Amino acid sequence: MHANFDLGSWSSVRLLQVEHALERWVTADTPQGLDHGAPAALVEAMRYAVLDGGKRLRPLLVLAAHEAVAACAAPNPEAALRAACAVELIHAYSLVHDDMPCMDNDVLRRGKPTVHVQFGQASALLAGDALQALAFELLTPLDGSVPAATQARLCALLARAAGSAGMAGGQAIDLASVGMPLSERQLREMHELKTGALLQSSVIMGAHCGAPTSTALAGLQQYGAAIGLAFQVVDDILDVTADSVTLGKTAGKDAHNDKPTYVSLLGLQASQAYAQELLTQALEALRSSGLPNTQALHALADMVVNRAH
Amino acid sequence: MHANFDLGSWSSVRLLQVEHALERWVTADTPQGLDHGAPAALVEAMRYAVLDGGKRLRPLLVLAAHEAVAACAAPNPEAALRAACAVELIHAYSLVHDDMPCMDNDVLRRGKPTVHVQFGQASALLAGDALQALAFELLTPLDGSVPAATQARLCALLARAAGSAGMAGGQAIDLASVGMPLSERQLREMHELKTGALLQSSVIMGAHCGAPTSTALAGLQQYGAAIGLAFQVVDDILDVTADSVTLGKTAGKDAHNDKPTYVSLLGLQASQAYAQELLTQALEALRSSGLPNTQALHALADMVVNRAH
Repeated sequence: MHANFDLGSWSSVRLLQVEHALERWVTADTPQGLDHGAPAALVEAMRYAVLDGGKRLRPLLVLAAHEAVAACAAPNPEAALRAACAVELIHAYSLVHDDMPCMDNDVLRRGKPTVHVQFGQASALLAGDALQALAFELLTPLDGSVPAATQARLCALLARAAGSAGMAGGQAIDLASVGMPLSERQLREMHELKTGALLQSSVIMGAHCGAPTSTALAGLQQYGAAIGLAFQVVDDILDVTADSVTLGKTAGKDAHNDKPTYVSLLGLQASQAYAQELLTQALEALRSSGLPNTQALHALADMVVNRAH
Repeated sequence: MHANFDLGSWSSVRLLQVEHALERWVTADTPQGLDHGAPAALVEAMRYAVLDGGKRLRPLLVLAAHEAVAACAAPNPEAALRAACAVELIHAYSLVHDDMPCMDNDVLRRGKPTVHVQFGQASALLAGDALQALAFELLTPLDGSVPAATQARLCALLARAAGSAGMAGGQAIDLASVGMPLSERQLREMHELKTGALLQSSVIMGAHCGAPTSTALAGLQQYGAAIGLAFQVVDDILDVTADSVTLGKTAGKDAHNDKPTYVSLLGLQASQAYAQELLTQALEALRSSGLPNTQALHALADMVVNRAH
């Protein structure tokens, strides 16, 4: 169906834009309307946490959803690039805090020492805090490049996806559930908050940088929910099937930490079948959106489910 | 001049509104547009951090600035109440993180065990993170009660005041400067970020809930800068002149921790004179704003400088 779509070349152009934008926006430069810039040491820790690392799945989802909607009406590539970077900053800050000794106590991330190992715990705490604020700063430029209604909508979506009924809430449930038996429903609810909310929000924020119809939005909501869940199911599968070198992080860690996973709950084979079923759901939702230009979203869903790391 | 203005009765009405709103908005209820509510344990830690404590100076500054501007044009009390609660959530989250062992390692705050003592470090970290997100959620209601342009402006102001060129940046400088000799200029710059940015932003956010003239904004900017700095000078004075019971926190702590303060730099008497000079500047700035209804702002500045704790 999308035989002619090359995700590799589509992504490489967008990844360059995102890296360049993050490089430019995570700085110590004095923002408009303030007398001071940010202290260099803090910004160094923030840049270390954000630049040169990660698959940038969330930014790619933002940009792909924007392109799907913008093919119909009212594109705003500047808003989409800002939203793409904002969701990545939220993701990056969550990793910094998640790696700290009082949480997962991880010393390596993407082959580098984690932020608290490199800069100390206090700096890691502050860098994470400042990255969250910076995400909302990126969404609210003072130069008129993004309409106020779009700024407000993007901030509303990101705040809810990041907060207590989204990512932070999911992390709290995760923390409380180590060593506890969870039902599949409880496990799904935990992941819908912990990783699903921000992945789904990436799709919806990208759509809102254009002018989506309600049919398009409904389809993209379902698409985002399906790939958000699929992402976690595949993560659990890879934790037992891949080796640490391929993963870029410690394999078998969830089982070792006695964390409930889809594999421990459903078994490996049923988990793999579930991931494929979620991919089917995601692609069906894309069709139901009525959007003509969904090749990138299609390919990203396929990549989420069939990735090797 | 304002002989008939009673700050006590003015404040008590507004404090009730703020406490009631915080009570209502820091909850586990499912927000609009999400399938889930927030996990109860996380929300319990968030409520513990926010409710029933603190002078609520920042919310009072928001409401006073809004009333000063709204006397001329376009009041929006709903926006002002949301902004008042949002700045308090940012302040509350900063205290939660600041008290953690990797930062100031404080075990008591407002006479209660700090959040990490009561709920554990991981929960304190997540509660702080979620409170920051909730601040932006409060600023972006989905019910049309606050115009999109106001939502965008309030998010822009709060993000910059909280982030690396504001509060978090000031904390980073504070962290790096323990035991280091600072010049008065360096000390002032640190405090302008650490506490000044959010105090000043409270005033400006309140003004932007109405429709301020540029003259009014310029005056309020100067007012906010003066009281932001005065707040810290007085804090330093009280650290050496008040006892712990009056302060509600450990007196003499800064000197003990070898932190640079105005008193260690200028001496006690010159610091007291400086605080009075800043009060004069703040009141002069209010006059220059051309706003007719500044009694509450006047009285709050007076309270900041002449408080006993």
